[in-house]
Amino acid sequence: MSEPRFRSDIVVRLVQRVGSDAMIAAAARVSVTGADGLQGEGGNPVTDANAGLIRYLMKHRHASPFEHGQLTFYAECPIFVAREWMRHRTWSFNETSGRYRVLEPVFWVPPEGRAVVEPPAFKPSRPVLVESEQVRESVVQFCQHSYYAAWWNYQAMIADGVAREVARSVLPVGTYTSFYATVNPRNLMGFLSLRTHDASATNLSYPQAEIEDAARQMEEVFKGLFPLTYAAFVGNGRVAP
Amino acid sequence: MSEPRFRSDIVVRLVQRVGSDAMIAAAARVSVTGADGLQGEGGNPVTDANAGLIRYLMKHRHASPFEHGQLTFYAECPIFVAREWMRHRTWSFNETSGRYRVLEPVFWVPPEGRAVVEPPAFKPSRPVLVESEQVRESVVQFCQHSYYAAWWNYQAMIADGVAREVARSVLPVGTYTSFYATVNPRNLMGFLSLRTHDASATNLSYPQAEIEDAARQMEEVFKGLFPLTYAAFVGNGRVAP
Amino acid sequence: MSEPRFRSDIVVRLVQRVGSDAMIAAAARVSVTGADGLQGEGGNPVTDANAGLIRYLMKHRHASPFEHGQLTFYAECPIFVAREWMRHRTWSFNETSGRYRVLEPVFWVPPEGRAVVEPPAFKPSRPVLVESEQVRESVVQFCQHSYYAAWWNYQAMIADGVAREVARSVLPVGTYTSFYATVNPRNLMGFLSLRTHDASATNLSYPQAEIEDAARQMEEVFKGLFPLTYAAFVGNGRVAP
Amino acid sequence: MSEPRFRSDIVVRLVQRVGSDAMIAAAARVSVTGADGLQGEGGNPVTDANAGLIRYLMKHRHASPFEHGQLTFYAECPIFVAREWMRHRTWSFNETSGRYRVLEPVFWVPPEGRAVVEPPAFKPSRPVLVESEQVRESVVQFCQHSYYAAWWNYQAMIADGVAREVARSVLPVGTYTSFYATVNPRNLMGFLSLRTHDASATNLSYPQAEIEDAARQMEEVFKGLFPLTYAAFVGNGRVAP
Repeated sequence: MSEPRFRSDIVVRLVQRVGSDAMIAAAARVSVTGADGLQGEGGNPVTDANAGLIRYLMKHRHASPFEHGQLTFYAECPIFVAREWMRHRTWSFNETSGRYRVLEPVFWVPPEGRAVVEPPAFKPSRPVLVESEQVRESVVQFCQHSYYAAWWNYQAMIADGVAREVARSVLPVGTYTSFYATVNPRNLMGFLSLRTHDASATNLSYPQAEIEDAARQMEEVFKGLFPLTYAAFVGNGRVAP
Repeated sequence: MSEPRFRSDIVVRLVQRVGSDAMIAAAARVSVTGADGLQGEGGNPVTDANAGLIRYLMKHRHASPFEHGQLTFYAECPIFVAREWMRHRTWSFNETSGRYRVLEPVFWVPPEGRAVVEPPAFKPSRPVLVESEQVRESVVQFCQHSYYAAWWNYQAMIADGVAREVARSVLPVGTYTSFYATVNPRNLMGFLSLRTHDASATNLSYPQAEIEDAARQMEEVFKGLFPLTYAAFVGNGRVAP
Repeated sequence: MSEPRFRSDIVVRLVQRVGSDAMIAAAARVSVTGADGLQGEGGNPVTDANAGLIRYLMKHRHASPFEHGQLTFYAECPIFVAREWMRHRTWSFNETSGRYRVLEPVFWVPPEGRAVVEPPAFKPSRPVLVESEQVRESVVQFCQHSYYAAWWNYQAMIADGVAREVARSVLPVGTYTSFYATVNPRNLMGFLSLRTHDASATNLSYPQAEIEDAARQMEEVFKGLFPLTYAAFVGNGRVAP
Repeated sequence: MSEPRFRSDIVVRLVQRVGSDAMIAAAARVSVTGADGLQGEGGNPVTDANAGLIRYLMKHRHASPFEHGQLTFYAECPIFVAREWMRHRTWSFNETSGRYRVLEPVFWVPPEGRAVVEPPAFKPSRPVLVESEQVRESVVQFCQHSYYAAWWNYQAMIADGVAREVARSVLPVGTYTSFYATVNPRNLMGFLSLRTHDASATNLSYPQAEIEDAARQMEEVFKGLFPLTYAAFVGNGRVAP
């Protein structure tokens, strides 16, 4: 029988993508030129004019030009992260299925440096935690004990011929899952706005650390592919258009 | 300390709603009359003309008239049901939060008569199960043991001041959750089409029994509120418009 | 043969609706209570606690509670207004059809006081116009001449047995159309944010006067039905959640 | 002053795209493998296994795998076609603006062979037309006369300093417009299903010829880029998943 494994990392890998700052600028310019501005350009030139135009679009919430593009990621994370992620209804998802397959015993534990303690002043509307290496280590112990018990019961049921969809009931939300996630630049910025905590943001968010980890990885990818759009997003207080 | 409770029921309760067969028919008729057909009608008359028109809309996939209406439900079900439900991106949801509150120890176990065994011919694409009261009783035992362990570890962490968002990692997907779910008639029919198994359906679906339970409860509500639309949906092989 | 008629008004009439500030507050509270807060309340009480909660949701862009509600309007307006309106993809529409029926000769002309002149400093990004009663009267003349010509040609083709879908090609975008339009409170606020020009708004918009007329009429309806939500929207700089 | 021009063609040009049958198959397979099936495949292999899987997805309406892909088109067509196109709310659009620019005098007339006559048995629900070269020629005359009058009045107002947004009221829905249009494979199939008339389709549609022209051009592009998906769509009676 397979043995439980414990992880703390969040995997986000770019699988395919299309679009560019030049496409976004061309989509905006069709309103005043009526023409296909990408025609004959020989690629996707990054121009100063595009930078100014994109800043203008972002500031005035002209959102639709930012929809002509798409990024597909492959992700591995605990179910509790996937649940938050899949509340974003403008994404497309395909996830591994606990009805169709016997799941793997891979479970999340908090890594070193992960704040896990609620301070006395804790408020749900501002869930800021504090670090304690001692408590974190005890959390790892509690989690592993509980995960072992769940996995043992899951395996026992599977061995008895119990349906995967029934046996999975005992698996914890700390179990790792995997999925493809597809989004356009506009809605990726909406996700980044809500799922990162950034001092420079106009609207402060307090996401759980693990979904922020996923968001920050996608932010790096986005920054590389759409540099003008990304700069305008940051310059606009991380408010999505 | 609170003691775990075990349930098998799925709660679905209508909270508010708007719309009628007459509104749907009026929305379709504006295409040929250009007028507000509900004006001065003194309510929502159910007419033979509406029945024929609604059958026509359903058959020819004229979907938009079925969007002028809304139903809001309050639901209680295990997380594994909520996860399937929330994949439907045309709904609006607000769910209780394991980050903001200490969760209740309420867990799902399979009720009497619930088929739980995978037959030798089991295929993920056609996940039909068979009944065995003996195996089901053992499943209840396995589940309860596992749920007790998870709950014990969760409570121990909460007592130590561990953050709710971290401690919840050990809670199983069989834990009950609760939420509001809002949808229009068009998208409710899309849900019913995929989340019920019905011999009269053009496209057979194989939903898990627990989400079908939720779907069947909403189907009864829908049938009472939109009788002509419901009859047309059933008459059209349960294919949503 | 029918004679052309000229109008300047925009008709917006509430047809059906559901939802309340109390429903929005209950949807938000389920995250911390896990319970159906509307249960047994005997209606939709407006409480101080709801006002504070709704302001908090608006400020922090917790948008989903504002989706549990729906308003359906019947509208009459020129095609150029309908085209702007129907760019809002979170609405549901059913419009009268120029393929299915012979259209009515009802056309838009600018009313008294409607600024129609582009000043020398006109910029597409800030399309502010100036008033001139003399120019406006000439516009009414030009429009009526052009509308008469279009209507004459349309009628001639219809009389010759030409298909409605072909004959309509000559009808101007100033022709009146009619439709049902359905939206939830969240997306109505998004519309109001973009389709009104308001000095108190964080993001100034420059909508065409006729769609702002429609928006302001819906704003009055919304204010009456969802007073706490409306106050929070205005207090938040008219930024939709 | 510029002179009116008359066209009958519909321009649809692919601008950018991403995705493949292999991506769609990989997205579906993650449900049973839990792994990134594109990893290390060295491209987008077209396999027999993918063909069978994609047929299965199409038949059973497993729609989400068909969302991991995107096509952006640049289009030129009359406003009456754009209005039908933009009713599809799962697309992203950016169109040229009659508020921001002075429009060009380019107008639609029915081309040779375009049926323009309503037969005696004409029904809105089945708008089948018949050919008459004589009537079509008279339609071209009526249209051109009407377009000239509209253009003359538009130009006169523009020359007088009237705002573009006001002057455009007289321009006909036969005026050409241009826009970018972006969609994923799932929703492109939904469009093709409703906007083509095809004897092999399970649900017969009766689109206007000009939007069917646009649809058929996109269908050719789609067939070339996603051959297995396209074959499965056609094999499934042109019912979108």
